[in-house]
Amino acid sequence: MNPPEKIWTAALVVIGDEILSGRTRDKNIAQVASWLQVQGIRLAEVRVVPDIAERIIAAVNDLRADNDYLFTTGGIGPTHDDITVDAIAEALGVPVVIHPEARAILERYYADKGGLNEGRLRMARVPEGAELIPNRMSGAPGIRRGNVILMAGVPHITAGMLDALTGKLEGGAPLLSETIGCWTAESEVAHLLQEVEDAHANCQIGSYPFFRDGRVGANFVIRSTDASDLASCVDSLTDGLATHGYDFTPGGI
Amino acid sequence: MNPPEKIWTAALVVIGDEILSGRTRDKNIAQVASWLQVQGIRLAEVRVVPDIAERIIAAVNDLRADNDYLFTTGGIGPTHDDITVDAIAEALGVPVVIHPEARAILERYYADKGGLNEGRLRMARVPEGAELIPNRMSGAPGIRRGNVILMAGVPHITAGMLDALTGKLEGGAPLLSETIGCWTAESEVAHLLQEVEDAHANCQIGSYPFFRDGRVGANFVIRSTDASDLASCVDSLTDGLATHGYDFTPGGI
Repeated sequence: MNPPEKIWTAALVVIGDEILSGRTRDKNIAQVASWLQVQGIRLAEVRVVPDIAERIIAAVNDLRADNDYLFTTGGIGPTHDDITVDAIAEALGVPVVIHPEARAILERYYADKGGLNEGRLRMARVPEGAELIPNRMSGAPGIRRGNVILMAGVPHITAGMLDALTGKLEGGAPLLSETIGCWTAESEVAHLLQEVEDAHANCQIGSYPFFRDGRVGANFVIRSTDASDLASCVDSLTDGLATHGYDFTPGGI
Repeated sequence: MNPPEKIWTAALVVIGDEILSGRTRDKNIAQVASWLQVQGIRLAEVRVVPDIAERIIAAVNDLRADNDYLFTTGGIGPTHDDITVDAIAEALGVPVVIHPEARAILERYYADKGGLNEGRLRMARVPEGAELIPNRMSGAPGIRRGNVILMAGVPHITAGMLDALTGKLEGGAPLLSETIGCWTAESEVAHLLQEVEDAHANCQIGSYPFFRDGRVGANFVIRSTDASDLASCVDSLTDGLATHGYDFTPGGI
C-alpha cells in the first residue's frame, strides 16, 4: 500500500445578496466543485454570504486557514455593491492598489465602448501583491493573491476564469467515483451499503434516492482516490445486490 | 417614520458530499431563500458541508447563535451516510430518541412495501424534544426542535416540508423589491446607482449584469421593507436613467 497522499482542499465563498434573496439561482457552486474534482482538489465547504464587508471577511478568514485554496465568486464588478476586493484586502491585511496591467486591459477593452470611467476603473483594483486571471469573456480580470482566488459571479465569466486556471494549481490524486443505479428504495438496501462500506476502508458510498416515472430508485456513488480499491468496492456492492436479487445498472440511472 | 422593525433572519446548512463533489446541483438554496422571503425572514448565510458529523455540528452551532432560525437540508434518510439527526442532537446536547408518531407514520407508509426494517426505522429517530414536519411525498417526516428545522435533501420533498411550515414561523415585514432592466453596461451607470442608493437610506440597489443575444445589459434590483421608500427610490432611479438618455424596462429584462 502506498503512504497516504496529501489531500488538497479548497473552500468557496459565494458573495451576493441575489443568491440569498432567491432572486438568482447559483450556478457557481456546481461548476467550481466539478472543476476542482478534475484538479485533484476537494471542495471542503461552501459559504454563501451577503454583500457586507465584515461577513465576507469573517468567512474568508475562517476558511482560508483550514484549506489549501480559497475561492470567491461575485462582487468584483464596477458598481457600488461590488465590495469583494476591498473586503479581501482587509482580510489579508494589505492595501488596495490599481494593477497597471488590469488598467491597460480595461483601457483596451473599453476603447471603443466609451473609454474608462470611475466605475470601470474599479475593476483594475486588486489587493496589493495580486496577479491577474485572464478573462476572455468581458475584459475585467479575475484576481489571485497567494492561495486566495477572486472570480466573477456571472457563471459564464467564472467558467472562463476556471479555464484560465486549469493546470495552474497544485493538487493531489483526483477523487475517483463509480455509480451503480438501482430501481429499489434505498431503505431496502441500507444494511448492505453499510456492510460494504465498512469492508472497504479507502472508499465512501453515498446513496442518492430519487422518484421518477412513478417509481423509487437510488444511485449509489462509490468514491476513492485509489482505482483498485474503488473497483473492489464496486465488485462487492454489485455482488451483494445480485445475491439479494436486485437489478442494478452500472453507471447509474 | 415607524420605529425600525425587528429583522428576522435564518441560516441554512446544506449537508451533502454530493453537492461538494459537483455530482448534484443544489436546488434547495434557491427554494429555501425564496420561501423565506415570503415569510418575512431574511436568509443571512448558507453553508454547504460534507457528511462529517463535526463539520455539521460546527456549522450548526456557529449559525444558530446568530439567527432566529436554522434550517438544514439533507442527510435524514435511511442509509449509513444519513447522519444529520445524530449530529444535530449532539450540537443541541440532547439524546436521539425514536419519535412514536414518526414510527407510526413509517409503519403505515411501508405497510404494503415490505414493512419497517432497521434502515427505515432510522427515519423515526429525532433529537429528544422534537416535533415532526409532515411529508406528504414520501412518509418520513421532517423534524423541528425549537428554532432548528431539519428537512430532506431531495428538492421536491423539501418543497413539501416548506409547504407544511408555511405560516407557522414568526417573521417580520417581507423584503420588497422592484427590478429595472436596462440594455446598458452597468459600468456606464455605476455612479448613478451609487448616488440614488445614497439618497435613499432605507433601500439597497443591487446591479446584476448579463450578456444576451450579443448585447450587454443589467437588471437593477431595488430592495426595501417599506413600500413608499421603495417606490420613491425606483422613481429616482428611473428619472436618473431617463435624464441620461438610457432606455429602461420596468420589471426587468
